[in-house]
Amino acid sequence: MKLKRKSAGPSALIRPLVRRLKAYVPGEQPKTAGFIKLNTNENPYPPSPKVLKAIKAAVDGRLRLYPNPTAEPLRRELARFHGCSAENIIVGNGSDELLALATRAFVEPLPGPAPHSTNSTSNTDRRTVARSLVQYFVPSYSLYPVLADIHGARRNPVPLASDFGLPNLGALDHSKRWNWNAALTFITTPNAPTGRGYSTTELEALCARIKGVVVLDETYVDFAPENALELALRHPNVLVSRTFSKAYSLCFQRVGYMVGHPELIGALLKIKDSYNVNGLGQVAALATLDDLGYYRANFRRIVKTRDRLREALIQMGFEVCPSATNFLFTKPPRFSAADWLQRLRERNILVRWFDLPETRDYLRISIGSETETDMLIRAIRDILEPAPRRNVRSQNV
Amino acid sequence: MKLKRKSAGPSALIRPLVRRLKAYVPGEQPKTAGFIKLNTNENPYPPSPKVLKAIKAAVDGRLRLYPNPTAEPLRRELARFHGCSAENIIVGNGSDELLALATRAFVEPLPGPAPHSTNSTSNTDRRTVARSLVQYFVPSYSLYPVLADIHGARRNPVPLASDFGLPNLGALDHSKRWNWNAALTFITTPNAPTGRGYSTTELEALCARIKGVVVLDETYVDFAPENALELALRHPNVLVSRTFSKAYSLCFQRVGYMVGHPELIGALLKIKDSYNVNGLGQVAALATLDDLGYYRANFRRIVKTRDRLREALIQMGFEVCPSATNFLFTKPPRFSAADWLQRLRERNILVRWFDLPETRDYLRISIGSETETDMLIRAIRDILEPAPRRNVRSQNV
Repeated sequence: MKLKRKSAGPSALIRPLVRRLKAYVPGEQPKTAGFIKLNTNENPYPPSPKVLKAIKAAVDGRLRLYPNPTAEPLRRELARFHGCSAENIIVGNGSDELLALATRAFVEPLPGPAPHSTNSTSNTDRRTVARSLVQYFVPSYSLYPVLADIHGARRNPVPLASDFGLPNLGALDHSKRWNWNAALTFITTPNAPTGRGYSTTELEALCARIKGVVVLDETYVDFAPENALELALRHPNVLVSRTFSKAYSLCFQRVGYMVGHPELIGALLKIKDSYNVNGLGQVAALATLDDLGYYRANFRRIVKTRDRLREALIQMGFEVCPSATNFLFTKPPRFSAADWLQRLRERNILVRWFDLPETRDYLRISIGSETETDMLIRAIRDILEPAPRRNVRSQNV
Repeated sequence: MKLKRKSAGPSALIRPLVRRLKAYVPGEQPKTAGFIKLNTNENPYPPSPKVLKAIKAAVDGRLRLYPNPTAEPLRRELARFHGCSAENIIVGNGSDELLALATRAFVEPLPGPAPHSTNSTSNTDRRTVARSLVQYFVPSYSLYPVLADIHGARRNPVPLASDFGLPNLGALDHSKRWNWNAALTFITTPNAPTGRGYSTTELEALCARIKGVVVLDETYVDFAPENALELALRHPNVLVSRTFSKAYSLCFQRVGYMVGHPELIGALLKIKDSYNVNGLGQVAALATLDDLGYYRANFRRIVKTRDRLREALIQMGFEVCPSATNFLFTKPPRFSAADWLQRLRERNILVRWFDLPETRDYLRISIGSETETDMLIRAIRDILEPAPRRNVRSQNV
């Protein structure tokens, strides 16, 4: 018994929405060693020795058993840490899982082939489309439009101010694009890839006016002077997203969480996979919360290295945005950003470049260790002033 | 600035579909030690010493880095193992993630409030609803209807034959419920919770006639006399789902995979989270493939224990379905199955009971170690013949 389909290929079995999708491209994970990896905002320092020890101690017969399905002990510790209740918290397979769950829980997919973004200006129309709208500032985390597309929702990208600051309320009121009723608004704070931090005051003014759900994506907040976690406990429409990946050196083990109103958290819990967070990740996150001093010392080191690199880049003619994160967003001199990406890669240094109108003049450079930073600075100098002429600039360290 | 919503609660922000959902209830993970856990089909034996060693050896500074986003080295090893190409394989955060991805990739959600199951008999109508249909036999894995509900698809439960076998093609042709055009059909093989195995021949006859995507969920296949993996490589509409959780003692670390046509696999890859499989899980699965002899010896032990327990249960008056898995599905004598659940729990033995019309007369008992099995048999005897009278049955071992 043979199927006709066999020759035609099975693409007709795939939803048209999915067939049309382009996949999100994560930053390169080099297959060979020897690269200085400043492209995916990983922490240059390892997890604390106590965390490594706790994980190793858990590698035994228990691996045959299912982990706690809601990471209950971790939820309780996070609740204690943030002064809220476990019902305010959901733990995810990295915060990416939680961003995807929020899209699925709060945004209505459009029926049939979806007009993926809208320029509509009629007020009635805007209210109708609002429940299918995933709204976010550009530039910010490039995953949000991907999540909207996967879900069959409408993307609503809203430009940041020209200095990458948040537009003020008046500007948003007059914006043809912004929609106060959007089902879901993502705000990366501090922002990526620009590095810019936003104040809790301006975030609260925004959150209080937005009628839909707001996710404050605080992936990089440990490198910033302030955080807005309190907004998730004060406003019933606000979720704050955090992760152990970057600040806590646990990218490998996929643990993130969200804080917010128990009803919103409950909706996310209902649609997550049963055992979404691996057991050793839970063990690692719990041990991390028990050794925060180690990580805070690293935050200070990284911030110090960041500020040193910023100064050095400015001296070499780069424009560098102020950063409240563990990376710098910078417009390089002399060559195009795409050129710099390539020239640094030839010197075994990976940085990130986003080929979008708002970002294509910039490089995003993660903060590495002090040695890696020295090597980066040397490589940049070498690109600006090839070797034979280098010694005339030697006073410029 | 205060929101009116604050007093009303944020439930209006949640999609009606999600508000209506009941969450899937996984089997109990006891919070205290001392239970004999025969309720979630975990392997009674730990991962191999080589696997534990490999994981421990990977617990170091690399945890700060992202894992391989598609688990590429593991995909390649699995491809070699199954005699196919890496493009035929996707690795997931447990196979549950992949079952959910398949639902989202191949099934159109219904717009608006969804009639969640259909009894429609008109042929035109059946073809129209087919692309929103998640079809599965009952009883089988209780997650499938949950996945349909979360996605806003239509559930289509189709009764198994009275002996829990697959209905034959003629019976399905005449069935009012079965739909050859269903967008997605899940077949648990061997089945859970019944334990019954299906032959590759009968599965192939089904797969060849089904027009939509078929997922053969082979979670328990390592305890069965045959597997149907070849069907995923021969039929472009067939995906086979496997997991390292049960047979390979890795529930804790969440690693499953699917095998199938590169176009179907590609659709799943496009909609998965960027880094969906934790790094130590990838390490553990790779080391597992390198030490299969250890696991195969355990399969033989578990099958032997299973057959011994089956005999003992039959002798004590239980009806026991033939099993090709690491659990038994059994109709207990004297008391109701719900009563037995409780009576065993009082003796610190956890088994599983599903409160559905097709299953509520049965208990599902996972195969434990030999000692646990002895303790289970003793407890059952004690329930049937309380202690004072027990010695009159002592010849009955």
